[in-house]
Amino acid sequence: MFKAKNVIRIGKGANAVLARPLSGIPLAIWAFSLTFALALGSTAAQQTPPPNPHSPPPTSVTHQMYLDMKLGTLNIHGDNAVVEALVLQRDIPITYDYVATLMRTPNAFGEGPACIVCHSSNDQLKSYRGLNLSSCEGILLGATEAPANPIVIKGEPFQSHLIQRIRNNRMPLGTPFFAPVDTDSILAVKDWINAGALNDENFTTKVLPLFVDPVAFGSETACTECHKSFRDPPSFNEVNLTSYDAIMTGAFSKTRKKQNLPGLPIVVPSNAEASPLYQRLTTSRMPPGTDPGSPADHPNTLLLMRWIEQGASCD
Amino acid sequence: MFKAKNVIRIGKGANAVLARPLSGIPLAIWAFSLTFALALGSTAAQQTPPPNPHSPPPTSVTHQMYLDMKLGTLNIHGDNAVVEALVLQRDIPITYDYVATLMRTPNAFGEGPACIVCHSSNDQLKSYRGLNLSSCEGILLGATEAPANPIVIKGEPFQSHLIQRIRNNRMPLGTPFFAPVDTDSILAVKDWINAGALNDENFTTKVLPLFVDPVAFGSETACTECHKSFRDPPSFNEVNLTSYDAIMTGAFSKTRKKQNLPGLPIVVPSNAEASPLYQRLTTSRMPPGTDPGSPADHPNTLLLMRWIEQGASCD
Amino acid sequence: MFKAKNVIRIGKGANAVLARPLSGIPLAIWAFSLTFALALGSTAAQQTPPPNPHSPPPTSVTHQMYLDMKLGTLNIHGDNAVVEALVLQRDIPITYDYVATLMRTPNAFGEGPACIVCHSSNDQLKSYRGLNLSSCEGILLGATEAPANPIVIKGEPFQSHLIQRIRNNRMPLGTPFFAPVDTDSILAVKDWINAGALNDENFTTKVLPLFVDPVAFGSETACTECHKSFRDPPSFNEVNLTSYDAIMTGAFSKTRKKQNLPGLPIVVPSNAEASPLYQRLTTSRMPPGTDPGSPADHPNTLLLMRWIEQGASCD
Repeated sequence: MFKAKNVIRIGKGANAVLARPLSGIPLAIWAFSLTFALALGSTAAQQTPPPNPHSPPPTSVTHQMYLDMKLGTLNIHGDNAVVEALVLQRDIPITYDYVATLMRTPNAFGEGPACIVCHSSNDQLKSYRGLNLSSCEGILLGATEAPANPIVIKGEPFQSHLIQRIRNNRMPLGTPFFAPVDTDSILAVKDWINAGALNDENFTTKVLPLFVDPVAFGSETACTECHKSFRDPPSFNEVNLTSYDAIMTGAFSKTRKKQNLPGLPIVVPSNAEASPLYQRLTTSRMPPGTDPGSPADHPNTLLLMRWIEQGASCD
Repeated sequence: MFKAKNVIRIGKGANAVLARPLSGIPLAIWAFSLTFALALGSTAAQQTPPPNPHSPPPTSVTHQMYLDMKLGTLNIHGDNAVVEALVLQRDIPITYDYVATLMRTPNAFGEGPACIVCHSSNDQLKSYRGLNLSSCEGILLGATEAPANPIVIKGEPFQSHLIQRIRNNRMPLGTPFFAPVDTDSILAVKDWINAGALNDENFTTKVLPLFVDPVAFGSETACTECHKSFRDPPSFNEVNLTSYDAIMTGAFSKTRKKQNLPGLPIVVPSNAEASPLYQRLTTSRMPPGTDPGSPADHPNTLLLMRWIEQGASCD
Repeated sequence: MFKAKNVIRIGKGANAVLARPLSGIPLAIWAFSLTFALALGSTAAQQTPPPNPHSPPPTSVTHQMYLDMKLGTLNIHGDNAVVEALVLQRDIPITYDYVATLMRTPNAFGEGPACIVCHSSNDQLKSYRGLNLSSCEGILLGATEAPANPIVIKGEPFQSHLIQRIRNNRMPLGTPFFAPVDTDSILAVKDWINAGALNDENFTTKVLPLFVDPVAFGSETACTECHKSFRDPPSFNEVNLTSYDAIMTGAFSKTRKKQNLPGLPIVVPSNAEASPLYQRLTTSRMPPGTDPGSPADHPNTLLLMRWIEQGASCD
């Protein structure tokens, strides 16, 4: 990770990067936090460190890299160390040229078919969701099939469906791609949210029991096996599905409290489509067939996120 | 596989796919049946189920997929399950854009160099067979070196040399790419076919013995080790090379008899080049060096086949 | 390898290939010999065998391949056998189309990010070294950041930095990419060379001891562990760093003596940047993070070298 002392020692380029949400959040919690962050747009990671007027700007990214090597201020570790240190921690623009390659290359984000096999046209009879990932215009246009849906929000990888769909596993973990999305259990959650997400008898007797039921959503694991408290671990993402109040507290409430922030909502009353709780029950990770155990922070995913963060330029 | 009941339940898109040879033949026998099917053009798989007037056409491929998920009519299994279910069983057009990627990507169809390394020009002094796979026009033009040879027959992946060369192993299995193709044994088979493939003394004394000889074709396995009866197993593809009549009976005679069809010829009298028996002794699988044990139904090969089946459009 | 008898038997194409440095040097010593060869431009491998007037020119590369298969003159072995025999030993032009693919494909030369992730612009604030590998013009232009540096010398893969950087590991083996390049030890070597590489007291007391010091360059292995005599093995590349005279004798002195050639200099007095001894202490293998144990002769590296050898055409 990028340490605070670097902010002092390193000039403009590094500060600019640190000012971004992408670099400010530990990679390890991205995979889970993304969905939750999306509903309302988290500002937790957007705290910009003040620029250091005493550091001269580097004359080039190469120069900056040599400075960092000399100072030993780079903290290189893990599978993505190189991409992290040489690209993500700096102002290297990701070109559409590279994004274009990723869209048409098999196994670009792990194991799986190339994106453009299924998404190469805005004709909804030829391409899933009328989505064309084979051109920059198509990526920026998004899904044209009703409900039409942009997949890239410039500057906001966290809010971009393109990224969410590549990172987020469908819940419960291991649910097959082709499992129906309109089972009684899923519809009960959807209807409850769309009716206002009230703490009423319907919720108590029909919805809440689903989260402790090992088979309600087709798995042999109840939701509350992994989401039973505000502590992570044992719970993931500090999500607690054991009571109405716990659910409405949202994710990462404990961590965010230290920053005087509320938990990230996982339920948006009256809007199931915008509610991570419902999204995670119905949308599968892309490409179809991706092993849910494969890391969400594949280097190419991180580079695609950076492209969006930088404005998703077609140049 | 795509089950018959789907034909009833699922609308236009699926029926259209089922009407095609590609989807009608179990993938497991493609690898071996292709060559044989090519000589005369099999019609076995071209039985078109009647359209079901009661099923409304789906409004989009996404809609159709959700219907299938709800009905549970998708049968997902095996390594290519996702490509099978989401692309091959539907009307998803494969774009030249993706085909272009496959032609220039190393290991696109398994392990091996990219196609365009050896085939990037119509100049026969620069490129094998004067074949240019680096443009759509080049693919459709085919090998320009004499004997000029188209490699794609639009709508007919089974008859397209591009596909045959990617799928068919040279026989006997394991024969190296660089083994000569004009040994005495191979020429004896070639000359016999070109002279009319007669059941004469030359055949009995000079040709037939080659198929039982473990070293006639450079392997330690006689052809008849794997091709000795009309049953599969123990024989592959129901090919029987133990007698003149058996050879002329062709492949898959037992299976095809149930459909009142003759065996697929493996010998075309007077035309060795068109005879699978000769072809399989002389043409190696592409790319050179491919392990003969690697699956012929690589997902990218199936997608390339679908592109040809759909008309090999350059759009 | 390509045997001498082939020169007699095989026609124009093969001779033309043999006339080149690329084919004339055993691949096994490329990885190490490249750097040394670069300083002065070795001519050792440029001995052209006389054309054989009795061999008719082949009519096509396919024809030539069949001739070779018939004659059994191909010597196929090793991991790159196919690329060796079908492309490198022949006049197959490598197209920029393929080079372009390599520049943008992850893991093209082994494990590592695609080249264009870090090198996609001539703007030194956007791209390392102001180097743009995403276009042919960019590749031919080279690094635009001062000191501006061409990376391709047409016809000379050995002299081309593009190739050196892909093949040459930083020394001592295993030195991390981010290890500083201006340590006291490295600067002592640099300053000694730039001051004329004299055999003076500074050299004897300050420089020579560094090569026998296990920790001088950050490893636990002294340079002289692997470079202690003119024999290989036990020394690598017949490099001997145990004395002034030995160092100035250069690399491969024993082998080259048989050809009446001097050793390849590893020190160019007064020019540290041009001295392999200094280069190998400061420049890391690309892409960053490449395992130093991964083979330098990756087939795609060999194909890229051939492209340069053939003139680095943008067609």
